[in-house]
Amino acid sequence: MYRHYVQYYETDKMGVTHHSNYIRFMEEARVEFFKNIGLDYFEFEKKGLISPVVGINNCRYKRPSTAGDTLDIDVAIKAIGTVTFTMQYVMKNKDVVVFTGESEHCLLGKDGKIVPLSDKRVASLTEKLQKFIA
Amino acid sequence: MYRHYVQYYETDKMGVTHHSNYIRFMEEARVEFFKNIGLDYFEFEKKGLISPVVGINNCRYKRPSTAGDTLDIDVAIKAIGTVTFTMQYVMKNKDVVVFTGESEHCLLGKDGKIVPLSDKRVASLTEKLQKFIA
Amino acid sequence: MYRHYVQYYETDKMGVTHHSNYIRFMEEARVEFFKNIGLDYFEFEKKGLISPVVGINNCRYKRPSTAGDTLDIDVAIKAIGTVTFTMQYVMKNKDVVVFTGESEHCLLGKDGKIVPLSDKRVASLTEKLQKFIA
Amino acid sequence: MYRHYVQYYETDKMGVTHHSNYIRFMEEARVEFFKNIGLDYFEFEKKGLISPVVGINNCRYKRPSTAGDTLDIDVAIKAIGTVTFTMQYVMKNKDVVVFTGESEHCLLGKDGKIVPLSDKRVASLTEKLQKFIA
Repeated sequence: MYRHYVQYYETDKMGVTHHSNYIRFMEEARVEFFKNIGLDYFEFEKKGLISPVVGINNCRYKRPSTAGDTLDIDVAIKAIGTVTFTMQYVMKNKDVVVFTGESEHCLLGKDGKIVPLSDKRVASLTEKLQKFIA
Repeated sequence: MYRHYVQYYETDKMGVTHHSNYIRFMEEARVEFFKNIGLDYFEFEKKGLISPVVGINNCRYKRPSTAGDTLDIDVAIKAIGTVTFTMQYVMKNKDVVVFTGESEHCLLGKDGKIVPLSDKRVASLTEKLQKFIA
Repeated sequence: MYRHYVQYYETDKMGVTHHSNYIRFMEEARVEFFKNIGLDYFEFEKKGLISPVVGINNCRYKRPSTAGDTLDIDVAIKAIGTVTFTMQYVMKNKDVVVFTGESEHCLLGKDGKIVPLSDKRVASLTEKLQKFIA
Repeated sequence: MYRHYVQYYETDKMGVTHHSNYIRFMEEARVEFFKNIGLDYFEFEKKGLISPVVGINNCRYKRPSTAGDTLDIDVAIKAIGTVTFTMQYVMKNKDVVVFTGESEHCLLGKDGKIVPLSDKRVASLTEKLQKFIA
């Protein structure tokens, strides 16, 4: 589980966390998730593989949060396809769900071409992700 | 149509516009859209009505963009429900679609309660939105 | 000491942390500093006092940092004037100073008027700040 | 003169433009300034020269601004040194100055080494900047 402490600069004039920032918190939690399962995202990049976001889906803003709140973020793998995998996120503020959302990712090689998830270059990634399917 | 000129600070170390910023560009285009149809969003707020984002859906990152690019953003109404309406966005960089996405919104009154779209307080809004259904 | 783990979305296409984000890290460290000395900034606001930034000065970008880096941020009070106080920040990445900067703040009451630092309403704040003059 | 239309996501819970964003508006105005004097910043980068911010100084937040406001930003060259040049910015909201600030920049070559402003590689830049000294 990843924790994000909501900052003053992440709020807007409505007095709450701006909706775009949850997309950033998803990224924070994702980087931490990869780190925890032994897949350092930045190491990954050094090997010439990048993993761009290709989709953001089903984001539901259930309750507002604001500066000073602590968001507990759970990450899991929702699905693994042939070229993309989907991650899901649940964010809670003191046990109350404030946000749920999903991100979809593909893998690109040095040549900018899509690397299928069955490719041996990413076999260890795919194998690890499968263990975290929700 | 709304134009966003991509800024340096909106890119990330992958060299492209960070995916979270498109959610912000959607907001920029939405505010402009409301203004153009005679619904100044900030005036709206002064009347005690707020329109929070309750969902972000079906965002597809089709092509990267980067600092210096000009994004042309088309906005339309996808659907009007009983308590929420959904807006859709198509962003193009020199006629090539780079991003499509949707945002869902509800209306809240001064008491923080949901205002149904059939409510007379928002009749002019609902009526206007109906003209822009895609 | 406050720690900030640099996020991917905080970098730019130059591959490093965008310079504007250090101003945000200053705020993060400042909020934590106030909390640590028993002055919860958000509680402070509930009492009707706000403390806007009136100046950002002497920011020196000495070394770049990037996503994955951990910044250790030291905060101290540089000076206390009649209506403003100045805070100073030193940010290190593995013991190497990457950034130093200063922020200047005043206090505003519910009426939007400046509250002098000698005012009894803010006596506990001024007293506490004096202990942390560098 | 450059115009920035303040966005909702650029405000904070105090109801005003977050102070860190003015640093970003400075960058926007700077990029436009370079473009206008025939020095396309992004072209500049393609030639292997980068111009990082080495200092942010004397930023004064004189009046708040908020979403919906239009900021008119004037840019000028304050000083040209041997290795850095300093730019100054005045931002107005309907003719009222809301912010003034300065940024200091150096030039780095492909090797990451500082390029003196007297270097022939940057002669055209230095020459042009001199015309805009305030």
